[in-house]
Amino acid sequence: MNRRHNFNPGPAALPLEVLTQAREEAVEYGNRGMSLMEMSHRSPEVERMVEETRELLLGLLGLDDRYEALFMAGGASAQFGFIPMNLASAEAPGNYVLSGSFAEKAYLEAMRAGAAVAAASSKQTGWRAIPKLADIQLAEHAAYLHMTTNNTIEGTQLRELPDVSANVPLIGDMTSDILSRPFDYARFGLIYASAQKNLGPAGVTAVIIRRDLIERSAKADIPHIFRYDTFAQHDSLYNTPPVHAIWMMKLMLEWTRNQGSSEVLGERNARKACLLYDAIDASGGFYEGIAAAENRSMMNITWKLTDERLEASFLAQAEKNGFEGLAGHRSVGGLRASIYNAVPEESCAALASFLREFVRNHG
Amino acid sequence: MNRRHNFNPGPAALPLEVLTQAREEAVEYGNRGMSLMEMSHRSPEVERMVEETRELLLGLLGLDDRYEALFMAGGASAQFGFIPMNLASAEAPGNYVLSGSFAEKAYLEAMRAGAAVAAASSKQTGWRAIPKLADIQLAEHAAYLHMTTNNTIEGTQLRELPDVSANVPLIGDMTSDILSRPFDYARFGLIYASAQKNLGPAGVTAVIIRRDLIERSAKADIPHIFRYDTFAQHDSLYNTPPVHAIWMMKLMLEWTRNQGSSEVLGERNARKACLLYDAIDASGGFYEGIAAAENRSMMNITWKLTDERLEASFLAQAEKNGFEGLAGHRSVGGLRASIYNAVPEESCAALASFLREFVRNHG
Repeated sequence: MNRRHNFNPGPAALPLEVLTQAREEAVEYGNRGMSLMEMSHRSPEVERMVEETRELLLGLLGLDDRYEALFMAGGASAQFGFIPMNLASAEAPGNYVLSGSFAEKAYLEAMRAGAAVAAASSKQTGWRAIPKLADIQLAEHAAYLHMTTNNTIEGTQLRELPDVSANVPLIGDMTSDILSRPFDYARFGLIYASAQKNLGPAGVTAVIIRRDLIERSAKADIPHIFRYDTFAQHDSLYNTPPVHAIWMMKLMLEWTRNQGSSEVLGERNARKACLLYDAIDASGGFYEGIAAAENRSMMNITWKLTDERLEASFLAQAEKNGFEGLAGHRSVGGLRASIYNAVPEESCAALASFLREFVRNHG
Repeated sequence: MNRRHNFNPGPAALPLEVLTQAREEAVEYGNRGMSLMEMSHRSPEVERMVEETRELLLGLLGLDDRYEALFMAGGASAQFGFIPMNLASAEAPGNYVLSGSFAEKAYLEAMRAGAAVAAASSKQTGWRAIPKLADIQLAEHAAYLHMTTNNTIEGTQLRELPDVSANVPLIGDMTSDILSRPFDYARFGLIYASAQKNLGPAGVTAVIIRRDLIERSAKADIPHIFRYDTFAQHDSLYNTPPVHAIWMMKLMLEWTRNQGSSEVLGERNARKACLLYDAIDASGGFYEGIAAAENRSMMNITWKLTDERLEASFLAQAEKNGFEGLAGHRSVGGLRASIYNAVPEESCAALASFLREFVRNHG
């Protein structure tokens, strides 16, 4: 097989080793005489597999047993609803930093759940920048402060977190940059990430939550299936979980661990991003980065052609040269290269060469 | 590989052909140079795959375009919350027929969503029987009448549906018997089924909904990600769906179609069930069926050993003889054989022989 250079924004590239393992166990899991997909979620093997995934994830995040990792369904978008339903109320609303379209969506969904205020917004920049930490204004009775650490669509990324009072937990949507760099995850009370960027294929969402917030969720007057404490009490096996998706996350986490430390991964991701930003910045104005320079993401590189009439031709030639997924999000246009952990450095180098070559041929 | 005789209650047996296909495409989908799990859910291939799954499902159910099929996450348990949130209110509550533990769970979750009354209950029989249709009492302003067509844990199954006024839609939890027999699915306004019994592995839930109910859901004041009309408007691609799970459902639906008509499947399932009920009934009191005779399920056969001290030995020997998943649900005890569409007739014949042999050795 001729593997494509895969820059899809999510679902996204997976390591070939992980796919090969998935193939090996598709029909029979170990020597069990059946596939993992045919096994009861109450079997010791599946319970152990889920437990190992949880331990791997908390270990890679460097979090101790003040935290629990839950495996939920419905993607980060479902968390946009579950978070306020579990943790906020009209009297103590969730506070939201609006830094991009997904952050705004989280805020709007929390409004519909009856419990949100905006703490800061950079919408007037067209989401090219992230609000300054100094501009964040918390409501008097804030249930939490919600931030999106990486804005997938716009290609911006948080460098640091605000200092907030200890009784206002920070909540982070880290869907598109979890485990991509050294990070003090303990700054957050709750982190969530749907799998399909750095944690495996689509189908499961990791929710890492501190025990005081689990306890708070136990008081929410909502169906039990939506409560974090239900998932925590039953080790994510209250009802049938997406077993195959959790198993793929386990394979992906093992691969991540085998890459070395978070420093190693962070440095590799920075090199990958630099290859592309350098090609954009050195193009003499042929390409133009979309994100504000100080907020540039190491995961999603967004840019455009100054002469937008060349865009279709760029995409067609990229396609022909083995590059996949470079069209920008339909709400933004332009171009985007998503370079999550599983995207090899060589793919970024190849794309950087292609960028330069395209300038030579059309500049 | 020595395949086990798989009687798991769900996740459950899958056809070997389906697993083999899954293996073939695990690393590369078609000739696309990447796995399906690495492809964007906005790519033409994935959009087409989801569309084909939808058409296959509606076709097998014999439903026309008054209905839409949605692919959602979170299992049937999440629907226990979504249904009242979308379709009921304190003024017009959902009405529930309590026929088993999952039916009761659906009712309790709807109560927590603020909008449910019980229309009938057979709890006093220990769920051994299903309420009689004549005993169903609808509230004056019923938003819908919810029924569980097959009670997985207790092993009972509905033979017919009640006649209710046209403005009270019937809602059916058909998780454990969808597509198992000839059935007039158009009697329902909404049908839901999590995949892991007759529709594939765990990770996605099919929601088949009539258009008037989609319109009603559009008025619900809840986060958009929980609204049926959001999924309908976006062809289940509003956010990233569980692509792999939907694809496995497609393979499973193709296999189902290839078995022949619903009559063929229904007759085969009846033969499978008879093999086991006959072995239980002809045991001279050694085994005893749990469900009331007139409510016996063709999907989940529940029984116990009259001498319960033999149960552990029965399970150990069954295990040794290649039979998987025969322990009853922890809330009921006893034994259970789940014989969904993908469980071969030969597995049921082998289990029936084993049942008789165990009587000979211990009776």
